[in-house]
Amino acid sequence: MMKAARIIKPNESLEIQDIEIPNPKGSQVLVKIQSSGVCHSDIHLWQGGYEGPGGQFLKTTDRGVTYPLTPGHEISGIVENIGEEVQQQGRILKKDKVLVYPWIGEGLCPACRLGEENLCDNPRSLGIYKDGGYAEYILVPSYRYLVKLPEHMDMDVAATLSCSALTAYGAVKNANMKPYDNIVIVGAGGLGLMAMQLAKAVSGAKIIALDLDDKKLKAAKDNGADYVINTKNETDITKSVMELTNNMGADAVIDFVNASKTVDTDMKILRRRAKVVLVGLFGGELRLNLVTMPTRAYRIIGSYTGTLADMTELISLADREIIKPIISDKFKLDQATEALSKLKEGKIIGRGVLNP
Amino acid sequence: MMKAARIIKPNESLEIQDIEIPNPKGSQVLVKIQSSGVCHSDIHLWQGGYEGPGGQFLKTTDRGVTYPLTPGHEISGIVENIGEEVQQQGRILKKDKVLVYPWIGEGLCPACRLGEENLCDNPRSLGIYKDGGYAEYILVPSYRYLVKLPEHMDMDVAATLSCSALTAYGAVKNANMKPYDNIVIVGAGGLGLMAMQLAKAVSGAKIIALDLDDKKLKAAKDNGADYVINTKNETDITKSVMELTNNMGADAVIDFVNASKTVDTDMKILRRRAKVVLVGLFGGELRLNLVTMPTRAYRIIGSYTGTLADMTELISLADREIIKPIISDKFKLDQATEALSKLKEGKIIGRGVLNP
Amino acid sequence: MMKAARIIKPNESLEIQDIEIPNPKGSQVLVKIQSSGVCHSDIHLWQGGYEGPGGQFLKTTDRGVTYPLTPGHEISGIVENIGEEVQQQGRILKKDKVLVYPWIGEGLCPACRLGEENLCDNPRSLGIYKDGGYAEYILVPSYRYLVKLPEHMDMDVAATLSCSALTAYGAVKNANMKPYDNIVIVGAGGLGLMAMQLAKAVSGAKIIALDLDDKKLKAAKDNGADYVINTKNETDITKSVMELTNNMGADAVIDFVNASKTVDTDMKILRRRAKVVLVGLFGGELRLNLVTMPTRAYRIIGSYTGTLADMTELISLADREIIKPIISDKFKLDQATEALSKLKEGKIIGRGVLNP
Amino acid sequence: MMKAARIIKPNESLEIQDIEIPNPKGSQVLVKIQSSGVCHSDIHLWQGGYEGPGGQFLKTTDRGVTYPLTPGHEISGIVENIGEEVQQQGRILKKDKVLVYPWIGEGLCPACRLGEENLCDNPRSLGIYKDGGYAEYILVPSYRYLVKLPEHMDMDVAATLSCSALTAYGAVKNANMKPYDNIVIVGAGGLGLMAMQLAKAVSGAKIIALDLDDKKLKAAKDNGADYVINTKNETDITKSVMELTNNMGADAVIDFVNASKTVDTDMKILRRRAKVVLVGLFGGELRLNLVTMPTRAYRIIGSYTGTLADMTELISLADREIIKPIISDKFKLDQATEALSKLKEGKIIGRGVLNP
Repeated sequence: MMKAARIIKPNESLEIQDIEIPNPKGSQVLVKIQSSGVCHSDIHLWQGGYEGPGGQFLKTTDRGVTYPLTPGHEISGIVENIGEEVQQQGRILKKDKVLVYPWIGEGLCPACRLGEENLCDNPRSLGIYKDGGYAEYILVPSYRYLVKLPEHMDMDVAATLSCSALTAYGAVKNANMKPYDNIVIVGAGGLGLMAMQLAKAVSGAKIIALDLDDKKLKAAKDNGADYVINTKNETDITKSVMELTNNMGADAVIDFVNASKTVDTDMKILRRRAKVVLVGLFGGELRLNLVTMPTRAYRIIGSYTGTLADMTELISLADREIIKPIISDKFKLDQATEALSKLKEGKIIGRGVLNP
Repeated sequence: MMKAARIIKPNESLEIQDIEIPNPKGSQVLVKIQSSGVCHSDIHLWQGGYEGPGGQFLKTTDRGVTYPLTPGHEISGIVENIGEEVQQQGRILKKDKVLVYPWIGEGLCPACRLGEENLCDNPRSLGIYKDGGYAEYILVPSYRYLVKLPEHMDMDVAATLSCSALTAYGAVKNANMKPYDNIVIVGAGGLGLMAMQLAKAVSGAKIIALDLDDKKLKAAKDNGADYVINTKNETDITKSVMELTNNMGADAVIDFVNASKTVDTDMKILRRRAKVVLVGLFGGELRLNLVTMPTRAYRIIGSYTGTLADMTELISLADREIIKPIISDKFKLDQATEALSKLKEGKIIGRGVLNP
Repeated sequence: MMKAARIIKPNESLEIQDIEIPNPKGSQVLVKIQSSGVCHSDIHLWQGGYEGPGGQFLKTTDRGVTYPLTPGHEISGIVENIGEEVQQQGRILKKDKVLVYPWIGEGLCPACRLGEENLCDNPRSLGIYKDGGYAEYILVPSYRYLVKLPEHMDMDVAATLSCSALTAYGAVKNANMKPYDNIVIVGAGGLGLMAMQLAKAVSGAKIIALDLDDKKLKAAKDNGADYVINTKNETDITKSVMELTNNMGADAVIDFVNASKTVDTDMKILRRRAKVVLVGLFGGELRLNLVTMPTRAYRIIGSYTGTLADMTELISLADREIIKPIISDKFKLDQATEALSKLKEGKIIGRGVLNP
Repeated sequence: MMKAARIIKPNESLEIQDIEIPNPKGSQVLVKIQSSGVCHSDIHLWQGGYEGPGGQFLKTTDRGVTYPLTPGHEISGIVENIGEEVQQQGRILKKDKVLVYPWIGEGLCPACRLGEENLCDNPRSLGIYKDGGYAEYILVPSYRYLVKLPEHMDMDVAATLSCSALTAYGAVKNANMKPYDNIVIVGAGGLGLMAMQLAKAVSGAKIIALDLDDKKLKAAKDNGADYVINTKNETDITKSVMELTNNMGADAVIDFVNASKTVDTDMKILRRRAKVVLVGLFGGELRLNLVTMPTRAYRIIGSYTGTLADMTELISLADREIIKPIISDKFKLDQATEALSKLKEGKIIGRGVLNP
């Protein structure tokens, strides 16, 4: 038997349950979890939904989530047992240190065929549609979703690569910047800071960080931002961005908040041909001026996590410390509710992890 | 002296003026115009603006247009005279049949450097920011903006390639379809029909045409649409698209209307990962649900005309009759006002041209 | 028990053996084979190797092939039985008509992660490294390698999409042509003809077909070639290509022979920036002039079959008869040796298939 | 009158001639040269040719070069005078600090239309087909070929960005690496070192440097190489690369030598799907094994300088000191022959420049 911290009903404390340890068959692999990241989207699962346009509440159950659910999609661990096909294959072995790719698709849609399972028509992501990593063990449906980790890699750091860093990386890739571009990154929380590190590492673009909090803006500077703007004083944002960009506007904006107010500002600081990459799940609606879309040749791009290939790139970057995920809080499995509460209250600076 | 039909003041009849024939210097070329297409955007120049969000009027003069202006950006003709650099170059000669690329940039911004002058930060497009083709001659600022035409090509057909077909092609390229994709094309007017021909010619995707007018939908069928849906009965659109796409939704929508109502529908018929390509200049605003952008991984792409390279591709396709632009109305230069009025009233089915 | 036609030892007649019908477990699927294409590369398996540079013989066993082997990698059929994971998944069901993707990788290398399993570091392709389709049944290692076929699709046509058409499509995609490009296709056999159909369907480029055989050149014309050149008279090839391309040379060459002699000619007919896509397995060596590679900016691209996503595109194109694979010869399973002999002697015009 | 150091006849000392200062007309700009880089390809112009296959000598005059010629294509300077069109345009002004893009095309071929003038069918590059930068002034045919430099930028550093760094950048872009890729860079001279800096700055890939010279390999380490291999002991190269790449081979090789011997080695250290980017002009021939091209899915890519857009990216990177070109030797104009001789003898470590 193994322990798992599960959401039984939205908004109630997670319950520690005793569950049968699954037995891997065929191409399945059983992983003993070392570290499991605590993500903002876990809060949405816990609350049972998101804010939609007009104050409407978009329920997770309408998107296919069922309760009780073991959340947790940032999972690193050790291979405990493997199915017979995995054994024949001989590439993933017991005792291997692995990172789990949680954004699993059904395998037959166009996205899956192209290696973009994170965008599958019928996702069965771990920790969202299937039981996840707030537990001692997890059954991974195929060895394909595992990436071997370098022997010396920190398991907490590794865990955050499968969502926190991956979401940042997917956004940075969607922004597709050149060295002379000016990129505005909205929100200097965990994802925003990682996006700055990544933009620095692989694009050469100039980075302007926006946030309400001066402490976070200081962190932004330390993580690669060339310039920072405090957004408290709203009237100055556009002016500041214009000054920093030689009056041209931003070539790209990555918005890790994605609320009515932030996106409304995003649309005012764009250079012609600019991309706005929307990542956050804060929600609300934007009144979009339709004529400017073609005349200014803007692109608004929704960005959702990243691919398995992207995740292997991140492991390589983290292994060589080209990026450095920030682990700020560690919890035991039975502190899962506490971890989620602390995150919800904005008291976790980098990433919190559960160590079962 | 040459004649030109000019907009002196918005909403007044165009005036036929006598103007000095320019003398080409340096890399400039003087072209004797054979055919000059009449475009919807000429109506916006004539009316002095577009409808923005909330019924607001966006004035052309705020975007850098000045009056009096000779409109006309679809221009084919014969090289009449060349500057001394063109002479030294020896590639463009007097008497050459040419198509003029009107989407001229200042040449120093990132878009221009990449061959995307149509998206220049400081455009000086012919017929919009500079005098255009409603005239007997036009001075083209460099031989680079000319493409030689095959000897036998129809000059009216050629003219429409530089905007009508080019805008459709730019949109089709932005939709970037695969053979198994379902693409919805909104608006079966001149641009929409050309987009269907082009999508057929270079993508292999399945085409669903939407329009209010059964006659236009019949033309859609003839121009490559696999299915057509009349949008009068609004409630059925989503249902019909879902039926035709095996309940998945459209992989891409190209909206040649781009009004509040059409784009609102566009957003309801999308498959995950779908692209919405906005082309039309009808205007208004969209209330965009922000959370669905990342979770559904949508992309909204503003598409504005096309590149010089795209235009040379179109000449090749039209030359071999793989695409067939439809010329429905021919006018003399002094009928310019009549041509614009007829277009505004929706009485021109394909493309109207002026033959000075 | 089921029958399979197997290569026991290179160059000997295939033996019809009785083999246990496998029982699908986990994500495996058992397919009852309807049609199994006979491919030139099966001859290499049968002969035990390829010709390398300097008359050297490259043995298949050095590339990981083991005998006895059931060849056959173009496989269409009906789902006979499914593993328990496939049952839970509920997307692939018994009685489904399916096409099998045979270019299976180990799933953990960079190519596999990107959906390019055909280029896996450690391939385990069906009919090459694992038993294939010259049999009554095949065990497919995961439902992921199946694509459902439209109800009415001809099963012989379908079978050829997984290699013959796929290899042609991969090559056409690697050539990446634009409508104004001139593409030379070397070899008007089954693959060459399919490449012409595909280039016609999705590129709009002008096609010049090269072959020794006038009958095949006539077929080329019928399958989309704009021009044909008989290569018997070697001195004229370059001259003819130059005349047809306005003295510029070809923008791309796809060589379905890939022998010393053909590639030597390929290199003489190239425009600056041209691509040479090498597909055939005839072999030999090329004396490559190294300085011209950078100065002329040439690209030589090895092209090996195609991806699973490409194969789903082909099904869509074939379903709508935008491409029409040519099935010329049908054999029973016990005629496998006869089929291979006939193919080797050049007596099969289109594609031969086995119907077990 | 101005002074220019000109090649009158191949292999003879350059002659300092007095030449009329040109007067810019139309879109032309006259630049007062501050710094002019001395490039290996200038030696080929001086010697009148390259080594081709089989010891054959490929003459520059057969490629359209004419003598007398003022060489020099790495040119930074101050705008001295502008044509009337440039004046009207108002974007390039007298006294502007500028870098000249020398890879000028005729403007009408497909490459030019796409912004790849460096690959033009009929190039008229400065310092090769037209008089270049070994002079006090240069007439640039259009303001489009100028990029404004930041006020504080070193003019010698700037000059090297238009060929030395640009060629390295073009090659790095053609290699198109991902963070987990292993890239082998052959030749740790000026271009190789710059390629290492650039690969570090924008790709995140692991870099293995190959050279004969231990001093250069030390420099490689300082410029971003993760590993270095001395190629004197030929038998160990393959073994070393295999060890460093976990027995997979290199994902990409950039060969800045491009001689028979180096490329022969390149082909032995490749992972499946690998790219070999050929840049150097050393020459000779490669006996290419044709069958391995498709079966191993290799790509051999000739890389020739870079685009104007690439050059603007380099200015941004150099301005922020993300890359640091190494200027090792400065000469006066009348030392042009000495500069070329010293370069030919391998005595210039970084880049030599002429300061007229």
